[in-house]
Amino acid sequence: MSLARVQNFSVSLDGFGAGEGLSRDKPFGHAGERLHEWMFATRWGREMFGLPPGGTGGVDDAFARQFYAGIGAEIMGAGKFGPPGWQGNPEWTGWWGSNPPFHTPVFVLTHHPRPSIAMGGGTTFHFIDAPPAEALKLAREAASGRDVRIGGGSIVVRDFLAARLVDHAHIAVVPILLGRGVRLWDGLEGLESDYQIEATSSPSGVTHMTFTRKDT
Amino acid sequence: MSLARVQNFSVSLDGFGAGEGLSRDKPFGHAGERLHEWMFATRWGREMFGLPPGGTGGVDDAFARQFYAGIGAEIMGAGKFGPPGWQGNPEWTGWWGSNPPFHTPVFVLTHHPRPSIAMGGGTTFHFIDAPPAEALKLAREAASGRDVRIGGGSIVVRDFLAARLVDHAHIAVVPILLGRGVRLWDGLEGLESDYQIEATSSPSGVTHMTFTRKDT
Repeated sequence: MSLARVQNFSVSLDGFGAGEGLSRDKPFGHAGERLHEWMFATRWGREMFGLPPGGTGGVDDAFARQFYAGIGAEIMGAGKFGPPGWQGNPEWTGWWGSNPPFHTPVFVLTHHPRPSIAMGGGTTFHFIDAPPAEALKLAREAASGRDVRIGGGSIVVRDFLAARLVDHAHIAVVPILLGRGVRLWDGLEGLESDYQIEATSSPSGVTHMTFTRKDT
Repeated sequence: MSLARVQNFSVSLDGFGAGEGLSRDKPFGHAGERLHEWMFATRWGREMFGLPPGGTGGVDDAFARQFYAGIGAEIMGAGKFGPPGWQGNPEWTGWWGSNPPFHTPVFVLTHHPRPSIAMGGGTTFHFIDAPPAEALKLAREAASGRDVRIGGGSIVVRDFLAARLVDHAHIAVVPILLGRGVRLWDGLEGLESDYQIEATSSPSGVTHMTFTRKDT
């Protein structure tokens, strides 16, 4: 069965998945990279982001490594694909250079579809204007039986959770207070009645929350 | 040294310390007692709330037991002392009956001070209209060298944290999504630069966050 999964999605203790003031220079606004430092400190993160070898091999690493496992496609929001206004720039092909770290089809949700872009390393960006259930159907077809990663940002993760389309979610709660930005948890009242929720805190200070849909 | 401490203050995963619709029948609004069930399940909680003996003796119990340890006074907000409008009812003496579970002087922050009320079991309610630092000074004097508990609700905990008056805080994050209510974390951007933050998750699903001021 092809699952819809959220992996390595990081929020601050006060629930922000990105800061305020997102721009081309600051993809996460005033949050900078502070939501993701826990990943850069793991063995997997060192490899993944081209950092010097080393890193931790504990619970943070174990969770981080699920990012690729069994994934055949990703769905992301317009706000993850580029800075505000990228839709007006026909040259924009994402933040990630010629070899983006997805290596699968990626469906970008946007009200301004454009032709697909084939990048290096197996990533192809498709641009679709579709509600969550329809986007998931398309991504599942492209994933050829493998799972679909719901890649973010906050609004996309929230919408898919609210629609109960997510089978399994891994949210990393980082012990910082951003104070402002894009909230993940809004509008999810009662989520716990449909998901089994587990919490695993790490010596790094991060707490890994996992949500497994009860009927999965 | 007399510390200012928060103990057993519970919030939902989406950061609400109480729900919406607080009333005499529903002190925590639509949240009901769901934020506090983790405490009722502990050995300490069973004793404390007059429940049948038993309960867990793990990390939830270890944290819960710090509630009284070394405490000589409490500060609470008007919203903890009674339902909206209690200030207009001269007969209101709190939710807790004739023997409230404080057993120390309790300073209630209100813009409508009234004469102090001596209850059973060593609890005396004092009503003061004072900013956080001044309230803490009064409570410290009353605590005779022991610590002062910052008892909540959310707005009071937040105000004392924002003013960096809290030396040690224990916040229990409960894996439910309330969706609406009174937020704890608002306006605390950058708190992590002044506090060492630790996370300890429990098999119950609760994550205990502790904040220790770096200069304490």
